[in-house]
Amino acid sequence: MTNATAPLDFIRPEVDRALQRFVDRRRTAFDDPDLAAVLGTVRDFLAGGKRLRPAFCYWGWRAAGGADDPGVISAASALELLQASALVHDDVMDSSDMRRGMPSAHRRFEKLHVDSGWHGSAVQFGEGAAILVGNLLLIWSGELWRNSGLPAESLASAQPVFDHMLTELMNGQYLDLLAQAHGENSFESARRVALFKSGKYSVEHPLRLGMILAAQSREAWIDQVCAGYGQNVGIAFQLRDDVLGVFGDPAETGKPAGDDLREGKRTMLIARTLELASPAQAQSVRALVGDPKLDAEGVATLRTVIEDTGALASAEELITTYVKEAVAVLDAAPIEAEAREALKALAIAATTRRN
Amino acid sequence: MTNATAPLDFIRPEVDRALQRFVDRRRTAFDDPDLAAVLGTVRDFLAGGKRLRPAFCYWGWRAAGGADDPGVISAASALELLQASALVHDDVMDSSDMRRGMPSAHRRFEKLHVDSGWHGSAVQFGEGAAILVGNLLLIWSGELWRNSGLPAESLASAQPVFDHMLTELMNGQYLDLLAQAHGENSFESARRVALFKSGKYSVEHPLRLGMILAAQSREAWIDQVCAGYGQNVGIAFQLRDDVLGVFGDPAETGKPAGDDLREGKRTMLIARTLELASPAQAQSVRALVGDPKLDAEGVATLRTVIEDTGALASAEELITTYVKEAVAVLDAAPIEAEAREALKALAIAATTRRN
Repeated sequence: MTNATAPLDFIRPEVDRALQRFVDRRRTAFDDPDLAAVLGTVRDFLAGGKRLRPAFCYWGWRAAGGADDPGVISAASALELLQASALVHDDVMDSSDMRRGMPSAHRRFEKLHVDSGWHGSAVQFGEGAAILVGNLLLIWSGELWRNSGLPAESLASAQPVFDHMLTELMNGQYLDLLAQAHGENSFESARRVALFKSGKYSVEHPLRLGMILAAQSREAWIDQVCAGYGQNVGIAFQLRDDVLGVFGDPAETGKPAGDDLREGKRTMLIARTLELASPAQAQSVRALVGDPKLDAEGVATLRTVIEDTGALASAEELITTYVKEAVAVLDAAPIEAEAREALKALAIAATTRRN
Repeated sequence: MTNATAPLDFIRPEVDRALQRFVDRRRTAFDDPDLAAVLGTVRDFLAGGKRLRPAFCYWGWRAAGGADDPGVISAASALELLQASALVHDDVMDSSDMRRGMPSAHRRFEKLHVDSGWHGSAVQFGEGAAILVGNLLLIWSGELWRNSGLPAESLASAQPVFDHMLTELMNGQYLDLLAQAHGENSFESARRVALFKSGKYSVEHPLRLGMILAAQSREAWIDQVCAGYGQNVGIAFQLRDDVLGVFGDPAETGKPAGDDLREGKRTMLIARTLELASPAQAQSVRALVGDPKLDAEGVATLRTVIEDTGALASAEELITTYVKEAVAVLDAAPIEAEAREALKALAIAATTRRN
């Protein structure tokens, strides 16, 4: 039924179904036709995810000896609701126009306001509605997690990690805002923010949650495997994100070219570029990154600098190194063989993706 | 130990302590000095609440025969975290400057940005940080609720109501945004939004949660008492809010005079005013409500119209009628005598408050 060499292909339709079932069960709370836009936005947004976090959770469960069980799919799918919540709020915070190839949630509600000829500020309406939609997704994440149908002992063992992950995610996102506000950062500080904002929450904690759910207790060897594999893959995952944010194909990423540059994100890739740049190159980076009016020519200039300094090659090298270290951790870990292969394949999928 | 005639005086210090203990236990997640502003904002914000929702929950527990228990105080205090979350997000959504006599959370972070001379938009930083702080408070509400130490049967019985309340709250807030966007509303539609956005969540559900926690099951008679008492007090509570939003003393409400008018809130009070107004009065209301530049003179004009039309007297009469109906429900309900008196006193406290 599962295939360790295509560990995402297996999980995607399962997660799709679990999310659809969950949202369908909440339809009665949306009887009012005025609420149709809320539920429609949630549905469209949820259709688009990569399902990476649920995959790490599911294969963590299998790694620690869990048998196939619809409960673990539901619990893992809760991570996709959490990710959707984070993206909806992120887009408000960054004023991003596009996400997953569609208008971002706040732009969608803004357009509804404009098209309907309503009173007041369409921008404010859009942002307010998106904050609420993000909250719904956050609330539903906890609800799906707790109602997965897994044994109470499994959930009780993993709940503190789930709770901790949520607080850490919010703190990581705040540190990210702060890094942008502080302006320039070293590679090391960019790496730290990436680890807290994205790395731990995208890879390490999903894996840990799956393993604890199966083991029904948080054991030291589990923490070691999750930290070793998770942090390496997490940072490599974020480096790939940094690269896609500059060089990605909009048709695949679902976001306009150079969006990260325009928003002034203080990524590891930009930090590395500045560390390797000549004074003239650095001046050009500082002038262009974070310019809200950055055009195609400016994006092209930045791409050239990032390549010419060797920062792009350095990022690619680091990704390869991190993935190798993660694979070494798996090879030494006392986990199920099929899950080991799946987690290797996932490490590669997460860090060579094009979207 | 408790005093049924001063049911809020008893609960306030208990809730204060429960919230402080909870936040203190999360300190380790905020070791980083960069995160101090997040925790500081949470602490200051939590110091200011009225503790009404925890009081309804606590006295619901007592009404259904629950004995004094620190667990119920913790569970009830979770409602104060939820309310804090809603207010922090509300203030972003409404662009409100003040809350509880202090700058609102987003303005506080905006000021931190300005004072620190950071890069980028201070407004955007403030809003982003406040969205995250609101999320933290929302997450922590669920965490404190689940970790109250009450018996698993109590929590399992009440959890579906807690979950439903959260979804209903977000939907109610969206309907409120929509009512503002639609512009003018009838009293009946304003009443409906008030019931969903605030009434149920401020009174009916807190009471229901307390009663179910004590009874360890959701029984039909509990639902009847909660709907009868909760919806009457909930609407009266919101009517008092409407009146304070126009006539309240800023020194007591902690918000600038006429803030609701400037923001264009479509309250029951404004709806009643328009229903009772002459064409000339209605024209003046329509011109002034929602004017972001509304000054003291404009606020005074609106106050005069709201009084002259009889809308203020009508609101006060309705508050009295709703509270009487709530008291009649209590008198007929098979609940503990001390809790009955406390809930009567709470109905009056919630609807005659000055802040």
